[in-house]
Amino acid sequence: MTKTVDAYVKKVDNGSITTPKGFYAGGYAAGIRYTHKKDVGIIYSSTKANAAAVYTQNAFQAAPIQATKDSIAKESKIQAVIVNSGNANACTGETGLQDAFMMRKLTAEKLGVAEHLIAVASTGVIGEYLNMEKVAFGIKNIGYIASKEGADDFQEAILTTDTFPKSSCYELVIDGKKVIIAGAGKGSGMIHPNMATMLGFITTDANVEAKALQNVLREVIDVTFNQITVDGDTSTNDMVLVMANGEAGHSPLSEDHPEWKVFKEGLKKVCEDLAKQIAKDGEGATKLIEVTVKGAKTKKEANIIAKTIVGSSLVKTAVYGKDANWGRIVCAAGYSGADIDPDRITVYLGQLLLFHNGLPVPFSEEEAKEYLSGDEIAITVILNSGEAEGKAWGCDLTYDYVKINASYRT
Amino acid sequence: MTKTVDAYVKKVDNGSITTPKGFYAGGYAAGIRYTHKKDVGIIYSSTKANAAAVYTQNAFQAAPIQATKDSIAKESKIQAVIVNSGNANACTGETGLQDAFMMRKLTAEKLGVAEHLIAVASTGVIGEYLNMEKVAFGIKNIGYIASKEGADDFQEAILTTDTFPKSSCYELVIDGKKVIIAGAGKGSGMIHPNMATMLGFITTDANVEAKALQNVLREVIDVTFNQITVDGDTSTNDMVLVMANGEAGHSPLSEDHPEWKVFKEGLKKVCEDLAKQIAKDGEGATKLIEVTVKGAKTKKEANIIAKTIVGSSLVKTAVYGKDANWGRIVCAAGYSGADIDPDRITVYLGQLLLFHNGLPVPFSEEEAKEYLSGDEIAITVILNSGEAEGKAWGCDLTYDYVKINASYRT
Repeated sequence: MTKTVDAYVKKVDNGSITTPKGFYAGGYAAGIRYTHKKDVGIIYSSTKANAAAVYTQNAFQAAPIQATKDSIAKESKIQAVIVNSGNANACTGETGLQDAFMMRKLTAEKLGVAEHLIAVASTGVIGEYLNMEKVAFGIKNIGYIASKEGADDFQEAILTTDTFPKSSCYELVIDGKKVIIAGAGKGSGMIHPNMATMLGFITTDANVEAKALQNVLREVIDVTFNQITVDGDTSTNDMVLVMANGEAGHSPLSEDHPEWKVFKEGLKKVCEDLAKQIAKDGEGATKLIEVTVKGAKTKKEANIIAKTIVGSSLVKTAVYGKDANWGRIVCAAGYSGADIDPDRITVYLGQLLLFHNGLPVPFSEEEAKEYLSGDEIAITVILNSGEAEGKAWGCDLTYDYVKINASYRT
Repeated sequence: MTKTVDAYVKKVDNGSITTPKGFYAGGYAAGIRYTHKKDVGIIYSSTKANAAAVYTQNAFQAAPIQATKDSIAKESKIQAVIVNSGNANACTGETGLQDAFMMRKLTAEKLGVAEHLIAVASTGVIGEYLNMEKVAFGIKNIGYIASKEGADDFQEAILTTDTFPKSSCYELVIDGKKVIIAGAGKGSGMIHPNMATMLGFITTDANVEAKALQNVLREVIDVTFNQITVDGDTSTNDMVLVMANGEAGHSPLSEDHPEWKVFKEGLKKVCEDLAKQIAKDGEGATKLIEVTVKGAKTKKEANIIAKTIVGSSLVKTAVYGKDANWGRIVCAAGYSGADIDPDRITVYLGQLLLFHNGLPVPFSEEEAKEYLSGDEIAITVILNSGEAEGKAWGCDLTYDYVKINASYRT
């Protein structure tokens, strides 16, 4: 029996961004946020790491994103990331840019590395200038505290309105050497919208060529972070950064390496894990919803349909209301813009068949309600018009918004 | 001083769909809905009217839409519309199609006109078969009651979860003859999603060539009905139908007629009125939001940006929370996908300047709060990159959904 590629990728239960060799992290409460909480975080690699990043598509890109872009543009290497929460440094014009570059400079000086080896990220309120005195104070102090034990502090420092920290860690083997890929993320959807930034930081001791790293990150993000939705709003500060410092000691990885697919699968697993945690932590959410679309003509169409369904407020409220409302699922598929044949669509809720070849099917409402009482809900839509598959993740819509919406059918 | 075209179009305060010459309407409670309410409605023209319609883009088009398309395809004329609420006759397969065509046949027989002169519309629950006994009973009875006084009964019959009936009536002059254009609409947004159908019926005694009527309807709908959003979901049953019976007695209108623009303006006013009423009646809404985008490169871009802003849950909750949160407005403009220059954007809330050339401006929070206490909120975004303008309409997001969202900044 042939093992599929994901059999080579193993979850590390208590792993964190400092589990890969040579990575250190920390967090410090510098008083930037209005509540007392760690608000400056750092990730540090003992050696320069090949780096790749993907940024928000919003026309308003915040100042820290511009500083990070500038850094990576130099030699595609990053040795440390400095992050603050409490203030996004977005829509802050020239002053904001100067502040972001000053964060970079202060961190570089503190760590004794070149400025272009520092990435900068900010998350919090839009349109207010950073209190640079506090930020400088934070950077000065955090220089001392990055450690192997500091991952939790870093996780705390990057949170804004998230209700739980998001992390993931996987282990795999390349050239017979153990490789770790780990990630820390934040993002809580739309509740506190100006703080809705989604950030992902991925550390790995794999040795990956910079160009291959950029390509695989973009490819993986398209089917993970880009397939989650909480409210459809894209923030000014979104960023996912991966650092690969090569300390695992295997031969350099690129598309030509025989075990490239194993690395790609590991990176995908970490990104998917973080993405699902962010989806689950959406505004007031009680459930993670996973939509799988099968039998599409193309992957792209499958992804669009899956994301349209999971983004439909009507589907989300139905899930919260434990209402197996296939009509809303089918309706969302119908307006996704993808080319579908209504008469061939089949819909499952978990294992329960709701809709078959374009027509509703009698099903047990009780069984459906019981399934919908769980906290992870799977919806599968089969188009029967091709071989391609896609997935997307989101959350239910809750509270009074739902008092109105969810009680309709009953 | 030259009068602009809209000076020739006058609102008729107590007008309705039966104000144009030769139009009659009625409504009847046939017991299709679970509550006692009129649920079968009819509009009848004493002569065959040139007709045009625009339908939902959803891949699942409900059976009645297919029946109406079939009717109009014959000779682009309609003499009566039969509508039921309580059941959308959507996702009902072959049986549903037969039922829709049976509604058409029964109505044609009752009125003594050809089948292809009947349009059919349904709104309500998806995926259940019509109770044709009740529908037939309704059609049988309603044949007697269409009258000049029946517009209100018709309005009641087409409502589902709407909180108020939507109507509009304008008067204009073509070739020295008085012409009336009137409309009745329904649509209440996403609260009761499977009943979210948007229907619009427009009657006019203007004499309009069929092809010109179809073209102008599509053009006007793009800047009115297509520019409203409550939750982004597009139903399976959406339809806007216009009937022009020519009884005003002027020469036939088409693009070549010197007063064509006056007719077009009147049609636009009726559609815009109905669209705004539908937006205002969105789920739990307390305010109508109108977003105007000026200084865009193209009308299309202006419309996209306006609709993205008014559709942003973050903007909607901010308006409910009386929070002049320009960050959310600017952010939505940024992810609209339109090509904008962040450094040139200016944002007004009513007359209050919030954001100027890419930077926040100090403003009176009290003044903003007072303005946001009104029930019609205007947001103006100036791009300073062209001459084109666009508008879109929506509503605020309310209740607990908002308890979470709206209290963030304060």
